[in-house]
Amino acid sequence: MSVEKWGLFEVELTGPTEGNPFVDVQLSAEFKNGDTTIKAPGFYDGDGTYKIRFMPSVEGEWSYASKSDSSALDGQTGSFTCTAPAEGNHGPVRVRNQHHFGYEDGTSYFSFGTTCYAWVHQGDALEEQTLKTLETAGFNKLRMCVFPKDYIFNKNEPEYYPFEKQGDGWDFSRYDIAFFHHLEKRVAELGALGIEADIILFHPYDRWGYAKMAHEEDYAYLRYVVASLAAYRHVWWSLANEYDFMLKDKPMEVWDHFFEIVQENDPYDHLRSIHNGNVTMNYDHTKPGVTHVCVQNWDVKRMREWRDAYGKPVIDDECEYEGNILRNWGNITARELVHRYWICIVYGGYAGHGETYEHPEDILWWSKGGVLVGESWPRLKFLRGIVEEGPAEGIEPFAGSFPWGRTAGGGCGNYRLIYFGEHQPKRFGNGLPEEGRYEADVIDTWEMTVETLGTFEGQEPIELPGRPGLALRIRPVEG
Amino acid sequence: MSVEKWGLFEVELTGPTEGNPFVDVQLSAEFKNGDTTIKAPGFYDGDGTYKIRFMPSVEGEWSYASKSDSSALDGQTGSFTCTAPAEGNHGPVRVRNQHHFGYEDGTSYFSFGTTCYAWVHQGDALEEQTLKTLETAGFNKLRMCVFPKDYIFNKNEPEYYPFEKQGDGWDFSRYDIAFFHHLEKRVAELGALGIEADIILFHPYDRWGYAKMAHEEDYAYLRYVVASLAAYRHVWWSLANEYDFMLKDKPMEVWDHFFEIVQENDPYDHLRSIHNGNVTMNYDHTKPGVTHVCVQNWDVKRMREWRDAYGKPVIDDECEYEGNILRNWGNITARELVHRYWICIVYGGYAGHGETYEHPEDILWWSKGGVLVGESWPRLKFLRGIVEEGPAEGIEPFAGSFPWGRTAGGGCGNYRLIYFGEHQPKRFGNGLPEEGRYEADVIDTWEMTVETLGTFEGQEPIELPGRPGLALRIRPVEG
Repeated sequence: MSVEKWGLFEVELTGPTEGNPFVDVQLSAEFKNGDTTIKAPGFYDGDGTYKIRFMPSVEGEWSYASKSDSSALDGQTGSFTCTAPAEGNHGPVRVRNQHHFGYEDGTSYFSFGTTCYAWVHQGDALEEQTLKTLETAGFNKLRMCVFPKDYIFNKNEPEYYPFEKQGDGWDFSRYDIAFFHHLEKRVAELGALGIEADIILFHPYDRWGYAKMAHEEDYAYLRYVVASLAAYRHVWWSLANEYDFMLKDKPMEVWDHFFEIVQENDPYDHLRSIHNGNVTMNYDHTKPGVTHVCVQNWDVKRMREWRDAYGKPVIDDECEYEGNILRNWGNITARELVHRYWICIVYGGYAGHGETYEHPEDILWWSKGGVLVGESWPRLKFLRGIVEEGPAEGIEPFAGSFPWGRTAGGGCGNYRLIYFGEHQPKRFGNGLPEEGRYEADVIDTWEMTVETLGTFEGQEPIELPGRPGLALRIRPVEG
Repeated sequence: MSVEKWGLFEVELTGPTEGNPFVDVQLSAEFKNGDTTIKAPGFYDGDGTYKIRFMPSVEGEWSYASKSDSSALDGQTGSFTCTAPAEGNHGPVRVRNQHHFGYEDGTSYFSFGTTCYAWVHQGDALEEQTLKTLETAGFNKLRMCVFPKDYIFNKNEPEYYPFEKQGDGWDFSRYDIAFFHHLEKRVAELGALGIEADIILFHPYDRWGYAKMAHEEDYAYLRYVVASLAAYRHVWWSLANEYDFMLKDKPMEVWDHFFEIVQENDPYDHLRSIHNGNVTMNYDHTKPGVTHVCVQNWDVKRMREWRDAYGKPVIDDECEYEGNILRNWGNITARELVHRYWICIVYGGYAGHGETYEHPEDILWWSKGGVLVGESWPRLKFLRGIVEEGPAEGIEPFAGSFPWGRTAGGGCGNYRLIYFGEHQPKRFGNGLPEEGRYEADVIDTWEMTVETLGTFEGQEPIELPGRPGLALRIRPVEG
């Protein structure tokens, strides 16, 4: 048996069905390759089936042995060969260069994410349309919730529920297998598209009681989700959407403990973050369990403040959405979202996309997926291309309040990307390289054009078209 | 002899010419009307002429008696009648309703200012063109410097200098009479147009040495300017443009003392403020000598923070200028300046205009005046009309971060003005009156149109056109 590096290897065992196997049975396995030993958690998959999933990150021969308090599951052994990764498989995304990301194989990863919170709860037709849209939309990360959503525009019942029904309520200690199989399938499909699944483990928009489970039920649920999904290389853990709106039921120490549980049960150390609701309620992202910063904040010119405050990569994953709904977080223009995205990027951070246009059947991309109807997404795809053509290390923002507190500028070595936005200078000299020849391009961020101005040397201001929405790109040239 | 209320009454006396009359001679006069006694400072006006200017604020019979250490000037007496103010004369502007302004006669004053720093140093042709432009531009305040300016686009020599020449330098203890006559004339002309003269007493952009005089020379200069100009009812004192760029030469206690000197020597207690350069360097505007807050800050959504921090009227008098020059403070689009102005207003503050378009002869409105070539000024004039049609008390911002930290909204009673800017909701319900009928209008802030949507009652969301740059106005109606 063989599996590619960073692929998913699954051990399937048969064990007890009596009692509550989700709770009563402990299962894990140790996977060994030379000096490398990794312990992976197992989980009950229904109908007497138990699974242990494993993502090998070293090529060669692996062996494993299971451990369980059930004799039927204990001491099961086996082996497999880990082969080279297939094309397009770069491994999991890691923090790199302090404020940036990279795949484990060394390939750069510049996060261009979008948001479909409840897309896996919409039924096959819409879910497949969402996947079709994502194929070409240009995003490489998707924020998505495990639990279904109850909110404006989100009143439909899901097809699956995460827990087994018990009378009029739920047995929070028994997971619904059909639900989790469906979730896994959708997560795997995102992986096949090269899209990181930023999995939101808790959120407040709930009418079923999932947001108000007892802490021990939350902890067990977390262990279950992590055991079932951690071996997918493209999984990220987002502890919450808007954790601060749940503080009454889940105080801060509970959130801190959630981070510990996820970290302890995920042998691959996937990225972990948490997202705030109120702009004044950022989590303390300096805590060691947090790998990168997520903020919800419209005021994207503060990106450098967040980078400095937390010393980690920053994703403003809700800098308001393109749309026209009555809520202000969901009715900015496409131009404004493109503007904010550019500011985040050039200031050395990342941003998130979402679409919230009114729809006759309440199918808003931000929550349900479907098709993209806005105008920002192609511009963000264009921006992603610009960034991917740039330095592999990522863009570091220029320091100082003047002039860089007014216009966003950053770079890497003599590569520079200066975004003017609402500014329209006829010439600009700040931030030009002190030494060496360079090519200067004007990028129209809305029209998605790149116009080469020529080759220059020195810091004499360069003439620009003097209209809004432009960026200046400087790239060093030989000679 | 008679003078209208808040008009300018001038006593002219002949006195000693020997020595340095600017320094050697003390002169003032007490003006009395019934129980009211006001002491006004005098000043030397050259050629043996001394003047005492006085602005009466009580109608009826006034008498005066001069006081001087020169016998020729001491004990001179006289009287005049103060008549009712002429039409359009509303008296000086005062702070009113904590965060707003009003003329002394009770008429509202909503500050819509522009900036021509060095306009009085450009020669008659250009200065008269500036006045012509201001006649119809719609601004009711002008920021202007006493001293000439040395800066990019400002390399021309002025016609007049504020001090008498002494060898290659200046005698900072002798004021140039032609300079001050010219300044007074231009200040008076602004008054005739109904424009408040926001007179900037110090600034750092200097090649003549005026920014680096000894403190005692600064103090004497301040007393002289105040004595000569304070009796013009439309004068405001701005201690500095960008005081923080002069801290090396004038430390904080010197600025504090400047406020004291101006306050002591101005019997009419004209408005006093000071303007920062770096956005992190706001003066402590809570100090008692400061009547209102001036800030330079592009981040206008912070307006409510400044109001709360200082508890006084706030003017963001440099929220960046419309233009296309290479400096970022001077190259935002007209749309962006209109956008920022609206945000300031609806958040219960005021803003400042300036234009900085490249010009073949370096005649940029922001400094030299001339003609307006941009597109924001008519929109600001339109906004002024909207505000003047609104509540006399001024607009108070809605409280709370949600949703009013994202979209600017404010009002007064059941009058509401909600500015959407980059937001484009198809319907909106926040901020509607809880009780009573009201008319709702959509204002297109760029097209300068007002469309009435009809009469409503209750808080059901109102349908909107769903495009950017709109405001919603709510006005209570009878019935």
